[in-house]
Amino acid sequence: MTVTPIRSRRAVRILGLDPGLRRTGWGVIEAEGPRLRYVDCGAILPPEDAPMGQRLAELHHGLMAVLERYLPDEAAVEETFVNMNPSSTLKLGQARGVVLLAPALKGLSVAEYAPTLVKKSVVGAGRAEKAQIRMMIGILLPQAAPKSEDAADALAVAVTHAHHRSAVTQVRDAL
Amino acid sequence: MTVTPIRSRRAVRILGLDPGLRRTGWGVIEAEGPRLRYVDCGAILPPEDAPMGQRLAELHHGLMAVLERYLPDEAAVEETFVNMNPSSTLKLGQARGVVLLAPALKGLSVAEYAPTLVKKSVVGAGRAEKAQIRMMIGILLPQAAPKSEDAADALAVAVTHAHHRSAVTQVRDAL
Repeated sequence: MTVTPIRSRRAVRILGLDPGLRRTGWGVIEAEGPRLRYVDCGAILPPEDAPMGQRLAELHHGLMAVLERYLPDEAAVEETFVNMNPSSTLKLGQARGVVLLAPALKGLSVAEYAPTLVKKSVVGAGRAEKAQIRMMIGILLPQAAPKSEDAADALAVAVTHAHHRSAVTQVRDAL
Repeated sequence: MTVTPIRSRRAVRILGLDPGLRRTGWGVIEAEGPRLRYVDCGAILPPEDAPMGQRLAELHHGLMAVLERYLPDEAAVEETFVNMNPSSTLKLGQARGVVLLAPALKGLSVAEYAPTLVKKSVVGAGRAEKAQIRMMIGILLPQAAPKSEDAADALAVAVTHAHHRSAVTQVRDAL
């Protein structure tokens, strides 16, 4: 039996994701108009010494378990910085492909936000530090106590999506 | 009902994959000792104008359909050149993650081969042109008539894997 946490009928449940091959953060919140409610967060850590295919399979299973447990309505992912070495970019891309795939397989749209927009939405400045993001998450979502930076970042992406969901979507939800 | 093509009991069925976001080539062969037999090949073309998540989902469904139809024993993918622009590398990485995931979800190991090794295995020279690969595929697998370069490249990866499967695996198969 899957336990689905109770949700308000008009709230939209948002899954934020911070993709990485070693650690993928996830965070679930509910947005009802301007009000945000924390649901849960965590990180998926595929075994680092396994072959690539198996690492990606573990990541996939972890993501599908989160999607099936929390049944989000929408998903959002942080856009990725690509100004690092090409081999790291390719590996991050591989994890990112698997991260984008999972919500799409559940029929969810996946919004993407630039890191500067995420920082601006949460902290108010596009050049915020990780520690500032984590502190602001604690203020915006008082129930949240993310155990890792990845989980905090994933919640920040979810908050960003709550703020930037298109006016069209919000009107539709209000009907 | 899924029609599974007849296979020899001792043959190993190999799926070769050439990942790409626009076109992912696939090719299935059977290897029994030094003998190779062509099974089928093709390409998966997710809709280019769809959102990224949906494109990756279409790629995933196409790959799973190939895996379920041909039931390969092993899979092989070409390693990716990364000396191009970072944004293209990230996108290719995303497709590649989804391509590596599918056989792993079916419990298959996924071998990776450098492009120069694939060329050397098929043509005999590490700097072969695409046209030479396609010609040699026609000679090595006379039944094959790949309709695209991607499918020909995928067959070339499968042939490379047939030549380079570890001695351990071949001894195990012989028992």
